[in-house]
Amino acid sequence: MKTPNANRKAPLFAAILAGGRGERFWPVGRRSRPKQFVDLFGGKPLIAHATDRLRGLVPTSRILVVTSADLVQATRAALPSLAPEQVLGEPEGRDTAAACALATAWVRAKAGESAVVAILTADHLMADAVGFRETLASAASVAAARPVMALVGIKPTHPATGYGYVELGAPFSGPGLPKGFRKVRRFVEKPNLGTAAVYVKSGRFVWNSGMFVWRVSVFEDALRRFRPALSEAMGRLSPLFASPRAVRAALKREYSALEKISVDYAVMEKADNLVAVRGDFGWDDVGAWTSAGEHFPKDASGNAVHGAAQLLAATGNVVANTQRGHLVAVMGASDLVVVHTPDATLVCTREAAPGLKALVAQIGADPATAHFVE
Amino acid sequence: MKTPNANRKAPLFAAILAGGRGERFWPVGRRSRPKQFVDLFGGKPLIAHATDRLRGLVPTSRILVVTSADLVQATRAALPSLAPEQVLGEPEGRDTAAACALATAWVRAKAGESAVVAILTADHLMADAVGFRETLASAASVAAARPVMALVGIKPTHPATGYGYVELGAPFSGPGLPKGFRKVRRFVEKPNLGTAAVYVKSGRFVWNSGMFVWRVSVFEDALRRFRPALSEAMGRLSPLFASPRAVRAALKREYSALEKISVDYAVMEKADNLVAVRGDFGWDDVGAWTSAGEHFPKDASGNAVHGAAQLLAATGNVVANTQRGHLVAVMGASDLVVVHTPDATLVCTREAAPGLKALVAQIGADPATAHFVE
Repeated sequence: MKTPNANRKAPLFAAILAGGRGERFWPVGRRSRPKQFVDLFGGKPLIAHATDRLRGLVPTSRILVVTSADLVQATRAALPSLAPEQVLGEPEGRDTAAACALATAWVRAKAGESAVVAILTADHLMADAVGFRETLASAASVAAARPVMALVGIKPTHPATGYGYVELGAPFSGPGLPKGFRKVRRFVEKPNLGTAAVYVKSGRFVWNSGMFVWRVSVFEDALRRFRPALSEAMGRLSPLFASPRAVRAALKREYSALEKISVDYAVMEKADNLVAVRGDFGWDDVGAWTSAGEHFPKDASGNAVHGAAQLLAATGNVVANTQRGHLVAVMGASDLVVVHTPDATLVCTREAAPGLKALVAQIGADPATAHFVE
Repeated sequence: MKTPNANRKAPLFAAILAGGRGERFWPVGRRSRPKQFVDLFGGKPLIAHATDRLRGLVPTSRILVVTSADLVQATRAALPSLAPEQVLGEPEGRDTAAACALATAWVRAKAGESAVVAILTADHLMADAVGFRETLASAASVAAARPVMALVGIKPTHPATGYGYVELGAPFSGPGLPKGFRKVRRFVEKPNLGTAAVYVKSGRFVWNSGMFVWRVSVFEDALRRFRPALSEAMGRLSPLFASPRAVRAALKREYSALEKISVDYAVMEKADNLVAVRGDFGWDDVGAWTSAGEHFPKDASGNAVHGAAQLLAATGNVVANTQRGHLVAVMGASDLVVVHTPDATLVCTREAAPGLKALVAQIGADPATAHFVE
């Protein structure tokens, strides 16, 4: 299938929110090198996957990355094809409402109120990049054609309890509109397993991927209505984007006063002009080492191995070794996660892996080892 | 208790046979750094424990270490208080018969045929050094007083299947002789578990520790009788010990022709003048990582930890980390062995640990990783 043509009247911009933390991928992920920098998949960091998979749909010059100020340099280094001004640093984390507003203000400054913005994530994998671009292109054409905000939902593959769900309502269709869009009925929090199973079986729910597409003016209207203070702050910022220095100063000035709230709570759950599509392109949030292993080469005993390792009588392990010249050897063990980096080595059970945060907290709380999580 | 006085008419020499291999302690142990160099216990290598525990019984100048030629430099470095001539290198391994004969020839050259030689091991731990010296002193006094060879057996603590056993016979006693010695009835190979249990229960068996004490002339007589070729080779070597260079040349000349056989097979099982004592001084052959863990500090969850580590919800693990500045973290796992060194990391179950040799063989057989066992 051909990737839809990116030339359209309303230019499409991509704003990648890169606010991830490193805890779930310790010791590869650190505070100074959070998940979007993890480079165990296809030889490049997740954030480079996030930009590269836009190729053919969004020109590089129309990509913006919003990250924390202390990660700006690392982000620019990871994405050398972006101009410095395409990586914006937030002086402090204010959750996604502020980041979405900032990104939309940046696009307005570049291309005006009729430009379309796709809010994307920095630390997910998508097996089917073509399918992803097609879905994104269709959402962009909906957002260009109608005063709606489009959520790119994910078709659930199992009753996950770690994601928010979005219930779909009536079809949203009309002349010239792509198929597959529906009005959003409601957002629901991470459900328990029973509820999740009901949701998945019903066929009416999608996972909330955090990906949205809107026209600048449409999001601005919603912001003005539901978050006037944030709207006004962005109004003050918008004229300053021509000067990186002025923007930095203004961000410092404005950010501490901004409300810390997700765009879902702040805007999406309240808006009545929300539509969604059921995305099906191999989305994976790579939420823990066990999921990471799904993307590593497998040996005949079901071990997922990245890097130099020797295994004997070992089954179902996830092994990642990022240090050149170092050998990891596993014998007799099953269903472990073994991760080796030049200064720290993790051994845990697959079962315990999703709870890695607690171990990272323990390491960070001990003055003798705190530096291993920085 | 006072350590018995080392001054006696027949001076006591100690010959430490240091021919160990590194496989069971990979990755800390390597071919070039076998078990006697493992320094995880009390901050010094096992071979230094072997010399240090003689203090007060055998003067440093009366210690000889017999090792392989390629380990002579490393051995001298590990034992700086020994003169270079006190570390003899065998040009090739010929098992313990040759090493015992060589050691005895060296002692004859130093102190004549009435000197007493204690053949000792380089890679064991003994919790009760005082008890060890007392036992060794009593064996030395038996060997000085009577034309017998004394085996320092070990009182079995459990029905081990990994050691040879020695059956004791009638008491060997007499005026001026220390108590506790018995004639040796027979040597038995490593038994199965049932047989081992019978042996232990009987009270008549000791483990064969590989430690023997004999007068030079008594061992020479036995050698002449049971291994004439070896006896003659040593007769040619003995006058050369004054010149290290001449000895090296003679060893090269003689060694390749020597029979490769243990002293047990070659001499001890045939001799009728063998006595033994039931040693009880916390002997531990530290045969695998699991046994090594017994000597590490324990945390409240039964983890045995050497070096920098953080553990969470982990029980019964053995963790050894020899790299300064590196952190090993273990979460949710039980009964694992985790060993980290600067260039290799091992993760295996406690159960699999005794079979480490197979993993080391696999690593050594792969050209990409063979250097990790050297």
